[in-house]
Amino acid sequence: MKAIIQRVTTASVTAGEEQISSIGRGLCVLFGISVADTQKDVDYMVRKILNLRVFEDENGRAWSHSVMDRELEVLCVSQFTLQCILKGNKPDFHSAMPAEQAQPFYNNILEQLRQAYKPELIKDGQFGAYMQVHIQNDGPVTIQLESPTGPTDPRLLSKQEKQQQRKEKTRSKGPSESSREKGASRRSKADPGASSGAEGDVSSEREP
Amino acid sequence: MKAIIQRVTTASVTAGEEQISSIGRGLCVLFGISVADTQKDVDYMVRKILNLRVFEDENGRAWSHSVMDRELEVLCVSQFTLQCILKGNKPDFHSAMPAEQAQPFYNNILEQLRQAYKPELIKDGQFGAYMQVHIQNDGPVTIQLESPTGPTDPRLLSKQEKQQQRKEKTRSKGPSESSREKGASRRSKADPGASSGAEGDVSSEREP
Repeated sequence: MKAIIQRVTTASVTAGEEQISSIGRGLCVLFGISVADTQKDVDYMVRKILNLRVFEDENGRAWSHSVMDRELEVLCVSQFTLQCILKGNKPDFHSAMPAEQAQPFYNNILEQLRQAYKPELIKDGQFGAYMQVHIQNDGPVTIQLESPTGPTDPRLLSKQEKQQQRKEKTRSKGPSESSREKGASRRSKADPGASSGAEGDVSSEREP
Repeated sequence: MKAIIQRVTTASVTAGEEQISSIGRGLCVLFGISVADTQKDVDYMVRKILNLRVFEDENGRAWSHSVMDRELEVLCVSQFTLQCILKGNKPDFHSAMPAEQAQPFYNNILEQLRQAYKPELIKDGQFGAYMQVHIQNDGPVTIQLESPTGPTDPRLLSKQEKQQQRKEKTRSKGPSESSREKGASRRSKADPGASSGAEGDVSSEREP
C-alpha cells in the first residue's frame, strides 16, 4: 500500500456541488491500495499515519509531534492512481486492488484508524466518486509512505520484513491467516471500472 | 528524484499574505531531490511530467492526453520532505540534497521544463520558503514518479550506491569534499531555514 500524506491547514472533499467532508489542521492522506495488500499493510499504515512526527511541539520544535499528539484531524481519500505503473507515458493500474475488494479493504483502514484514534477525527471522501480534493498543504510537508510489503524502500524493507516475520510467527496461530497468497490470487485483468477516484477508465494494457 | 504529481483544477502558492503564483487546470508537481540525483534524473522527470497521460482527450477518453497535449499549466514546488526515511516515526531527511545544491538543481529542472514546453506555462513556488500550497486535486488523480536513478527502486539502488561511493572516492581529494557526510552535517538541527518548504528543521539523527 502506498500513502501520500500531506500536512494541511485545511482540506476538504467535494463531489459536484456537495461538500462531502472537511478538516482543519491535520493530515490529508491519499491511499493507493495494491492487489497484494493484506491486514499487515493496514496495520503498518494505520500505525505510521497516526504516529508520524510531522508537527511541531508546544515549543515550536519541528518534527516532534504526531497528529494524535496534537489531537488533529485526518482526511482520508482512496486513490487507486497511486498504484500506477507507466507503460511509456500511459498509466496502467492493474496493480491497484479492484474496486469491489478495495472498498471493504479501504473501509477497514478507516475503521482501524478510528479505533486506534478518535472516530470523530477521522474523515473520509466518497469511495469511487469523481471528487475535488481541496488540499492546503502546510509547509509544504508531504511524506510518501509504503507499507512493508511494498516494493520501494530497500533499506527499511529487509529490517521491517524481519520484524514482521517475527511478529507473524507469534501470531501465526491466529485466525487472520489471509496471507499474501490469498491477496495475490485476487489479481485480475478484467476489472476496468475498478477502484476509487477519477474516471475509473483504467488502462487495460498489460505487459506480458 | 521523486515527484508527486497531482492533476489539478486550480493550484496556487502563498507565502504569508502574498500569492507567489497560481495556475488553472494542469499539474501541481512536488519535487523531492535526492543527494544522488544527476542531470539524467532531471531529463527523465522533465520528459515524464510533460508527457504523462493523465488528461482526457477531446472525446472524453481518459488517460489519453498529456499536460502538453492540452496546453495546460504546471505549478512546481520543491519538497525535500519527499526524501524522507523514517527512523521509527521520526522523518529523517539526510538523503535529500542539501539546500545550497538543491536550489540551482531545482532551478535547472524549471529551466528544462520551460525549454521543453512553453516558459509561460511553467510556474514556481518560492524555494525554501514556508508556503501554503493550495491544491485542488481533480479526480483525485495523483501519480508518484521516481526517476530511474532514484534511491527507492531496489533494483537500481545498489548500482547507484556503488556509483555514489565511487564518486565520493573520486571527490574525496578535491576541494568540495561535500560528500554525503558533509551534506549530512549541514542538514543539522542548527540549520533551520534549510531546504525548501516547511520549517526546515530536519532531523539530525542518523542511523550508524
